[in-house]
Amino acid sequence: MSVEELLVSAPGKAILHGEHAVVHGKVALAVSLNLRTYLRLKATTTGKVSINLPNIDTFVCWDLSELQPLTQYFLDVLCCLFSNLLLLGKRDEIQRVDGELVRILRKFVGATNENLDSCDMAILAFLYIYFLLFASSELPSLTVSVWSELPTGAGLGSSAAYSVCLAAALLCLSRVIPTPLKECDHTARWCQEDLELINSWAFQGETIVHGNPSGVDNAVGTWGGMLRFLAGKIIPLNRVPLLRILLTNTKVPRSTKVLVARLKDKMNKFPSIMTPVLDSVNAISCQCEKVLSEMTSQPITGEHYNILEELIDINQHHLNVMGVGHPTLDMLCRVTLAKGLHSKLTGAGGGGCAITLLRPETHSMVVQNMVQDLKDCGFDCWETSIGGPGVQQHSPLTVKQEIMEILNQY
Amino acid sequence: MSVEELLVSAPGKAILHGEHAVVHGKVALAVSLNLRTYLRLKATTTGKVSINLPNIDTFVCWDLSELQPLTQYFLDVLCCLFSNLLLLGKRDEIQRVDGELVRILRKFVGATNENLDSCDMAILAFLYIYFLLFASSELPSLTVSVWSELPTGAGLGSSAAYSVCLAAALLCLSRVIPTPLKECDHTARWCQEDLELINSWAFQGETIVHGNPSGVDNAVGTWGGMLRFLAGKIIPLNRVPLLRILLTNTKVPRSTKVLVARLKDKMNKFPSIMTPVLDSVNAISCQCEKVLSEMTSQPITGEHYNILEELIDINQHHLNVMGVGHPTLDMLCRVTLAKGLHSKLTGAGGGGCAITLLRPETHSMVVQNMVQDLKDCGFDCWETSIGGPGVQQHSPLTVKQEIMEILNQY
Repeated sequence: MSVEELLVSAPGKAILHGEHAVVHGKVALAVSLNLRTYLRLKATTTGKVSINLPNIDTFVCWDLSELQPLTQYFLDVLCCLFSNLLLLGKRDEIQRVDGELVRILRKFVGATNENLDSCDMAILAFLYIYFLLFASSELPSLTVSVWSELPTGAGLGSSAAYSVCLAAALLCLSRVIPTPLKECDHTARWCQEDLELINSWAFQGETIVHGNPSGVDNAVGTWGGMLRFLAGKIIPLNRVPLLRILLTNTKVPRSTKVLVARLKDKMNKFPSIMTPVLDSVNAISCQCEKVLSEMTSQPITGEHYNILEELIDINQHHLNVMGVGHPTLDMLCRVTLAKGLHSKLTGAGGGGCAITLLRPETHSMVVQNMVQDLKDCGFDCWETSIGGPGVQQHSPLTVKQEIMEILNQY
Repeated sequence: MSVEELLVSAPGKAILHGEHAVVHGKVALAVSLNLRTYLRLKATTTGKVSINLPNIDTFVCWDLSELQPLTQYFLDVLCCLFSNLLLLGKRDEIQRVDGELVRILRKFVGATNENLDSCDMAILAFLYIYFLLFASSELPSLTVSVWSELPTGAGLGSSAAYSVCLAAALLCLSRVIPTPLKECDHTARWCQEDLELINSWAFQGETIVHGNPSGVDNAVGTWGGMLRFLAGKIIPLNRVPLLRILLTNTKVPRSTKVLVARLKDKMNKFPSIMTPVLDSVNAISCQCEKVLSEMTSQPITGEHYNILEELIDINQHHLNVMGVGHPTLDMLCRVTLAKGLHSKLTGAGGGGCAITLLRPETHSMVVQNMVQDLKDCGFDCWETSIGGPGVQQHSPLTVKQEIMEILNQY
């Protein structure tokens, strides 16, 4: 079956517990965030390659004749071994993004500054995957359009969701993996082996964007649900419940590097005080994993939610102890607690984003009022869920109309 | 030298670090709080025993002829051995308040309800110590007047400060210990051995009031400074700096029992999460002790204060994790942090009192403004210090005039 049009989506990522502690060898739980990135790929006969990223005002189009001269470089590098390893998905090998190829691509798109902007990075990630997959055959004429519900640069895995979508769509186009959607399906997912391949290629895209990514974001985008991250190892967890949450962006800018260094300094200054705090965070992640697992095997009770809330509160205090809190995050916690709801920062902290657990019985009016209170603080809010599916193929009917309208413009 | 008039004072107590954790075998640091209880004892020839406690509107006077019949009960119980042990200060023996004697005293003062009020308890503590010391000789005619700067029932050791003053004054009157004040002195303290005796007798008073006291409050009232409390053992620490603080009473009522139970429940529910938190609290106490010790042996720097502030912040977060915080305490911390000053609850938590560390360079205007902000929240504030001297004898000139005026009324 040839691919004429393909619609895929991948979720964002939130850290449920263990941010920062993970740097010190503790467990972190990363969950899929059901703010999704949607990618529509259309095989065309225009002899052009178009990429449209309206979120970041990026619209690029090349003639295939412009792209053709670059294939030689990729073929030279794609020695048989490396190429085969890629297609077999041996991650150890394909993790190595070829620096020379990236330099050639940067020159081609005119992005020779040291610091690339997100437009350049998105284009480079596309071209890198595109050429690696198609340089050895005929370059396909196509239009790729992407729309994301995720804010960018907020530590929510927006670049990984993009890379996962790109990898899935281009791997389908190249027929390395099949399109899983049957006619009667609304959405469909790939088999484990194909997901591993998508994840490996998405990791390449992430490497172009981030230089040295942990691999967590693309793994969450690929597998969805929840995964445990410990000492560089990523273990997808089989079954987790879908949890309603409110995601809030305080929009307080922060530097992850500075925050990581702040905790490291505290660890050096007060090892006997801080080491147990990280142990406690580790235990919170384990306890949370246990409760979530119970929630899929037993009837869900209010007590499950009580425990999840208690773990959120304890961890938020620990994150303050770790020096990665912020007064706006404290304010956010107070605003949500005024409605009986519990919040913690997610990710780097020092501002940035927070998640608020919504209980099944939390009335939508309560959420609306709380969102208004949070907006009055200057924050952005999204009512969404965590633990939902990873990358999937969609029939157009299952994508919100407003998103389809955006994607169909191109 | 016979005692005609005697003026003594003893400080209150605050927990600097380790409240609640101490119940689970961790170190706590108790410090003297320089809100003092003052006691004036006047030997009289009126044939009366008067006790005046204007703080709690308690004024009692007996004829010696009313008291005399009670001596027989005390003599019966005061077998030679026990009496000697008392005077030798062997605490294991004298810790045992004689229940029968207490019952007799309660009947005498008409306090036969199960729950005694603070007036009854103060009177009983006085009579118990008075009879034990004087039943075997002649009952002295005297007037005792007490005024305390400490709020009662706020966990600040007001009853212990009272018992320590009583013990010191009555032991002096009975000539078991000398009056240490020389003519040229403003204040004077007793030698270690005498302090141990005062502490033992004060513990008896505390036992009347509290039933089963830890002994920390009377030890702080006796020795002052700071002491380390661990697994029931109380170790006075030699040298600590005097630290300016603001003591704030949120006036939120709380039950220590309920708060202790709340932590115990959390420990049972989440042992792997909570145990490290208590370990961290323990390390905070040890680190604080180390810094305070350094501050007496090295020039005091701003960095010493920075560390003390950081320890206060971390512990306040831990206390919240332990479930003994309160929204008013969080508010208090925010109000003081707005002035760059750091606070934590002290004692049972769940409301109650908090201490705010004032830095040497903190301008009095800043403190005044902060006090106003805290009073606007409905709190009571006292600018005072911690780490000051324990029980001492005063020349009347060294006691604030307003306090002398109160004491001299009786």
